[in-house]
Amino acid sequence: MSLIVQKFGGSSVADADKIRNVARIITEQYRKGHSMVVVLSAQGDTTDDLIEKAQEINPRGSKREMDMLLSTGEQISIALCSMAIEAMGYQVISLTGWQAGMRTDSGYGAARIKNINTERIRAELDKNRIVIVAGFQGLNKYDDITTLGRGGSDTPAVALAAALHADLCQIYTDVDGVYTADPRFVTGARKLSEITYDEMLELASLGAQVLHNRSVEMAKRYNVNLEVLSSFTNQPGTKVKEVVKNMEKSHVSGVAKDKDIARLALVGLAHEPGIAFKIFSLLARNKVNVDIILQSIGREGSKDISFTVKKADMEQAQKILEENRDIINFQSIEVTDKIAKVSIVGAGMINNPGVAATMFEALFDAGININMISTSEIKVSVLVDENDADRAVQVIHDKFFSLYGAG
Amino acid sequence: MSLIVQKFGGSSVADADKIRNVARIITEQYRKGHSMVVVLSAQGDTTDDLIEKAQEINPRGSKREMDMLLSTGEQISIALCSMAIEAMGYQVISLTGWQAGMRTDSGYGAARIKNINTERIRAELDKNRIVIVAGFQGLNKYDDITTLGRGGSDTPAVALAAALHADLCQIYTDVDGVYTADPRFVTGARKLSEITYDEMLELASLGAQVLHNRSVEMAKRYNVNLEVLSSFTNQPGTKVKEVVKNMEKSHVSGVAKDKDIARLALVGLAHEPGIAFKIFSLLARNKVNVDIILQSIGREGSKDISFTVKKADMEQAQKILEENRDIINFQSIEVTDKIAKVSIVGAGMINNPGVAATMFEALFDAGININMISTSEIKVSVLVDENDADRAVQVIHDKFFSLYGAG
Repeated sequence: MSLIVQKFGGSSVADADKIRNVARIITEQYRKGHSMVVVLSAQGDTTDDLIEKAQEINPRGSKREMDMLLSTGEQISIALCSMAIEAMGYQVISLTGWQAGMRTDSGYGAARIKNINTERIRAELDKNRIVIVAGFQGLNKYDDITTLGRGGSDTPAVALAAALHADLCQIYTDVDGVYTADPRFVTGARKLSEITYDEMLELASLGAQVLHNRSVEMAKRYNVNLEVLSSFTNQPGTKVKEVVKNMEKSHVSGVAKDKDIARLALVGLAHEPGIAFKIFSLLARNKVNVDIILQSIGREGSKDISFTVKKADMEQAQKILEENRDIINFQSIEVTDKIAKVSIVGAGMINNPGVAATMFEALFDAGININMISTSEIKVSVLVDENDADRAVQVIHDKFFSLYGAG
Repeated sequence: MSLIVQKFGGSSVADADKIRNVARIITEQYRKGHSMVVVLSAQGDTTDDLIEKAQEINPRGSKREMDMLLSTGEQISIALCSMAIEAMGYQVISLTGWQAGMRTDSGYGAARIKNINTERIRAELDKNRIVIVAGFQGLNKYDDITTLGRGGSDTPAVALAAALHADLCQIYTDVDGVYTADPRFVTGARKLSEITYDEMLELASLGAQVLHNRSVEMAKRYNVNLEVLSSFTNQPGTKVKEVVKNMEKSHVSGVAKDKDIARLALVGLAHEPGIAFKIFSLLARNKVNVDIILQSIGREGSKDISFTVKKADMEQAQKILEENRDIINFQSIEVTDKIAKVSIVGAGMINNPGVAATMFEALFDAGININMISTSEIKVSVLVDENDADRAVQVIHDKFFSLYGAG
């Protein structure tokens, strides 16, 4: 008998029928003899509705009171789902975050889990009950309710799975797994049966929005076996784990693209120590997150530094740099947001130096210009013109997934 | 500086404007230097909406999960009200029932308060914060959320006032006080500035639905000064306390009527001991609540026993008695629900034997027949035909409140 933690997002519990569907998925595993702990989000638009109510009263209400308000959304979900399971005749109990022993720091609105006291959950599992948890919330040291911040909603499920030493953590989303490329845009994209944590991390950060990085990092750290799957189909999903058998035969797991990117280039910097430090500590102090950084030798012994940021940060980054022109001492600054990042990810590529070359070949054959290249142990990213991005993903995907016969 | 506990019902916090109005009422007292603890109900129809959601999923969901669900309604109210007070620039904090230290028994759906640990509330008051409490809920010995049952929603406010030794407990309702009779039906009905606990108890049980008996009983027991007032007017309400100055000059505080009543009469019972015991223990075992009981000598040495029950219990009471005809041994049973109970209440009447006579005189003058009379130290009740009830209240009210010059 295994212990399985499942997590369902807001769209999976949006109405009575969907809640019944979730109840069926949960009880199917329970009937097989597994111990079940389930984390639910708030129903569909509940959180937005509550935010709207708050806005009407006070657009700048404290985060502490917002958490008091928003935590109710999940509490409604867990109660309703428990009732659906009761109606099917199974033993079940719902637990709020604090009842489930979730303790967080005091960062209202975006708290982080500090520890989980699993005593209550264990006791309920011992009574052979299905346990439904409002996991997106916890209690801080003041005994106040906190929420874990929108968007990181898989993290509590993974944290619970880690704390309970669960055998598997199943994340139900609206996609049915991790694909070699975004199936909405790329012909021939196919679902992976397995992927490593590191590959998943790279894919997530490259714009494949299946799992949030924080939850994958946590899964990797505590060695929690993840599975991403859909609550609307009855298909196996994609397993995310430390080591995968190279069933895929390809050294590449997926191709991803990220259009939310802008590039800044500082041209004609003095060739002296400390320049990079000055630039990036300035940006960090101003909360601008930098992604790819490239430094190259420029003309006449000077050097150039290029880097990418999110589109929304472009103007601010430019302003900061220009305000500090005297300190940094550059000749000119070039800025564009008409670019996209296209990347291949694969744990296998580290031992296969031909992988990057194959990617570049695909782009060359398609007449797509590469603006910038960045590589890591399991990833190759290129910047291309925004207009070329979709085609770039397709030709790269074609190259790898027909080359290695996995199509 | 006094400590004031205020309680606002669901209609007082139904929308953003009403919540702002409540925030104004609270902060007005706070600005005068009072410490403020405020108990709020769920917004308007929230509870009904949540019940509907539950019904759709499971019409027989457990009470434990219903409490998990319904407690969110109040949590939304307290968060929103706190934000409204924040917007006005005051220090405020919301507390769920369990954060406020409310501990209850395990009667899910209709729990009773066992004790209140006021430590957290005290600490927040010491920080000069207004404290907004979801008081209609608590935690039982399993650390599960319980709700205190619909309808008894003033009780937690009174309990909090008692636990905090508050100087005053203000109950805001949709009426602005306690009246000498229901002002919707009786011409000349006027608001009382003060009334005793006992009078309030009698009036409440007689159908004047201003405060619930449980909360008045608790206020009497712990000597909590109550005030009933409206959140929609800016007028002083009615104070409920142990002893009142007889400012009203009348020995009668109010006239009430109750149409939800049926009368059963057992005719021709044997004149032997134990009959009454048999009848009323039978009814009690079957959960039939009996109100007025009258026993009279019948014809030929036999006796009659009449009693009243709520309309909904009439048929069951009749059935029980007929099934046990052999044991009870009566000649016939007479049943009617075309009656109403009209009562006068006043702590002063005990020393004024003329009060009952004055009431009967009013009815006689109006040609209204009295079916049954019952008296207590501070109350005289009569049963009249249902069709005469409204007129009976009016003529009795006219008699007392013009006689004693208080109109």
